[in-house]
Amino acid sequence: MIKVSKPQGTRDFDPEVVRKRNYIFATIRKTFELYGFQPLETPAMENTSTLLGKYGEEGDRLIFKILNNGDILGQAQMAKDSRELGLLLCEKSLKYDLTIPFARYVVMNHGKLTLPFKRYQIQPVWRGDKPSRGRYREFYQCDADVIGSDALINEVELLKIYDTVLTDLGLEGYQLKVNNRKILAGLAELVGRPDLMTDITIAIDKLDKIGAGGVREELAGRGLQPAEINNVMDFISVEGSNDEKLERLSQLLAGSPTGLKGVEELRFILGGGLARFNSAPVIDLTLARGLNYYTGMIVEVKAPVQVNMGSIGGGGRYDDLTGLFGLPGISGVGISFGVDRIYDVLEELKLFPATAQQGTQVLFFNPGAEKLANVFGYVNQLRERGIVAELFPDDIKQDKQYKYAEKRGIPYIAYVEETAPGVISIKNMTNRERYNIKPEELAGFAF
Amino acid sequence: MIKVSKPQGTRDFDPEVVRKRNYIFATIRKTFELYGFQPLETPAMENTSTLLGKYGEEGDRLIFKILNNGDILGQAQMAKDSRELGLLLCEKSLKYDLTIPFARYVVMNHGKLTLPFKRYQIQPVWRGDKPSRGRYREFYQCDADVIGSDALINEVELLKIYDTVLTDLGLEGYQLKVNNRKILAGLAELVGRPDLMTDITIAIDKLDKIGAGGVREELAGRGLQPAEINNVMDFISVEGSNDEKLERLSQLLAGSPTGLKGVEELRFILGGGLARFNSAPVIDLTLARGLNYYTGMIVEVKAPVQVNMGSIGGGGRYDDLTGLFGLPGISGVGISFGVDRIYDVLEELKLFPATAQQGTQVLFFNPGAEKLANVFGYVNQLRERGIVAELFPDDIKQDKQYKYAEKRGIPYIAYVEETAPGVISIKNMTNRERYNIKPEELAGFAF
Repeated sequence: MIKVSKPQGTRDFDPEVVRKRNYIFATIRKTFELYGFQPLETPAMENTSTLLGKYGEEGDRLIFKILNNGDILGQAQMAKDSRELGLLLCEKSLKYDLTIPFARYVVMNHGKLTLPFKRYQIQPVWRGDKPSRGRYREFYQCDADVIGSDALINEVELLKIYDTVLTDLGLEGYQLKVNNRKILAGLAELVGRPDLMTDITIAIDKLDKIGAGGVREELAGRGLQPAEINNVMDFISVEGSNDEKLERLSQLLAGSPTGLKGVEELRFILGGGLARFNSAPVIDLTLARGLNYYTGMIVEVKAPVQVNMGSIGGGGRYDDLTGLFGLPGISGVGISFGVDRIYDVLEELKLFPATAQQGTQVLFFNPGAEKLANVFGYVNQLRERGIVAELFPDDIKQDKQYKYAEKRGIPYIAYVEETAPGVISIKNMTNRERYNIKPEELAGFAF
Repeated sequence: MIKVSKPQGTRDFDPEVVRKRNYIFATIRKTFELYGFQPLETPAMENTSTLLGKYGEEGDRLIFKILNNGDILGQAQMAKDSRELGLLLCEKSLKYDLTIPFARYVVMNHGKLTLPFKRYQIQPVWRGDKPSRGRYREFYQCDADVIGSDALINEVELLKIYDTVLTDLGLEGYQLKVNNRKILAGLAELVGRPDLMTDITIAIDKLDKIGAGGVREELAGRGLQPAEINNVMDFISVEGSNDEKLERLSQLLAGSPTGLKGVEELRFILGGGLARFNSAPVIDLTLARGLNYYTGMIVEVKAPVQVNMGSIGGGGRYDDLTGLFGLPGISGVGISFGVDRIYDVLEELKLFPATAQQGTQVLFFNPGAEKLANVFGYVNQLRERGIVAELFPDDIKQDKQYKYAEKRGIPYIAYVEETAPGVISIKNMTNRERYNIKPEELAGFAF
């Protein structure tokens, strides 16, 4: 046999896995729809020029580029290096995330879009990362965004969507951590180093991993003076309920209009009694999130602590989605679900419901040519009731058909026997109970 | 504004289109599942070596190849021509259909698969065809196959799946045309030119388009003698019911064991009284279908004649799915739905149900800060009932909010007014009726 393989970092999804993934997608989609978000799909390919320069230098390298068709040898010979070769030979690339294609879509359809536009998008993206455990070259992203509205009620809705979806998935103990970029800007002002805002946020974001001592070292390494470092550490150690934290922050940030704006925003979002949560959002002043384009609330969802999984989602508000394409003034707020990680969490906590894994409910054994039409009729009768039923197609020994049912995990088998005409025998494969029924009783039999 | 575009031959799917497409996919998926088919998903990318040589020379050219990462300039300089350049620089390619990746999957998972394996697969594929009306570079395929079973009951099930899905989609007047490759082989034997079987089938396949005269010419051009041509034309003009045709064919093909086998197979599939059809399959002796790997029954689904759309699906039995990868003996039978064309048919015949197009059911106007919590409570109460509801996020003039509802086609608007505390006003946007209800009546209001 010829050795065949699939590309590194890609996955085949077996039937059981597809079913479980679809259960997650369907749960998320249901809530997105319930909140009035509309589905959008963009192509796998974008023009390379649309993607390049949007994800940093590293990102540019990780974009999968698609070779132009036709005569390309001449072009190839003009390239001075590998990077230029890629640009010359590849007009198209695979999409790297859902945000830039969404921005491209908004720019192209700006005239006809009704704003605010609430869209969700569940599609695969591709990245040439080195494959490792949990990191794939093809994976799904699952985003919801509202653009064209500055109202903070959108933030509340998106937090509520997280809460609803995770509850629907049977999760408990997840955490919705929120912060506000304006508060982080205020912090940088407060310590007198607005120029180092990014450095400060990068450092404090690591508190969980490297502890307070580590953060101090990192801040020092990034150029903060001891007194400034003390200020930062005091700030991020503000404790208490959300209300208490906000109260304290409004004192600390009294000198920073930007910081106070951030406090006010969070107060509206969290303190307005606007929505009931199963797991209420909690202010985490160390939360920074990587993408620099966030400008208001940021959110990150942590998996329940008993599974060691970290973030299973995140998002935030941004001021400028489409500026890079020359269309200014499109602000928005969005969230994203990490479906691969949510899958692992549900698997580890055994939270996939039986219905998410269920295929065929009843297998009828093949009765041989003479009775085939009868038995096929029974099978189709079940299907008309919405019961997933199979007729074993081949007329082979019953013990082989039985093995098929066992391997497939089919919960009921049914058969007719030569020796008992007019009787359908049914066996519950789980509890081993047997039933003999008449054909006319099949319609009422509870599988 | 910078001019942005998307690659030629690709499509953005707007929300209304995604919803309608999902309605088609869901209808097909439901029936696949009901018949015990299991979902499979394979990556967008395959190794280039897996795909090359499987679709003919033209196919090889149309495969989208993905540029290797890393230092590729040296490799590029070794290429003698554009074709070789593609091979040197592109280990991976985008999948061209679902069949070869399925075969690759079967070979890689041969040891653990339970046969017969009934799988379905609904995923996009990519082809570098010249884009034109109805021909795209990214499109979905939608396949179901049974492998590891020779039983003809599989053919019956697959025909029944076509019939069920198309009926569920509200179609009438579609035609399931069937033939058998063995009968076509028998025909070539009958006229004494088994060497020209492919030429004969290509010619008679065009009867619809070029008429009997055209077929005669084409056969002559392909090297048949006048007497042989007469034989072919007599054969394909066999008329009558399926039973009558099969009866006549068994006489004509008396000298061809292969041909008689084909007749016998069709007799089992069509004449066994095994299944009831809304639109019974009809034998069409001119049906050939392009792919040479079919060996038994072939089927093609024609759209209702009132839409000029041609084939909306097809399939057949093959003897050797995985032989190209060195794993012989895997036979199967499969069908495919042409989703883009089905979409166009449903659109033209106005068969998309309202539910397939429905997004938000109720829009609550933004009542301003003071009453926001109340109204947001109403909106969430509706969502808990499963009613898709939105709160307009921004506190802007009501006529602008009204326009949003109109543009979005939202069937109900609701609002509270300063002047009437404790009253929710609801307007049915379709029939213009208005209702004033108390908040406690909202739970029972029938939207």
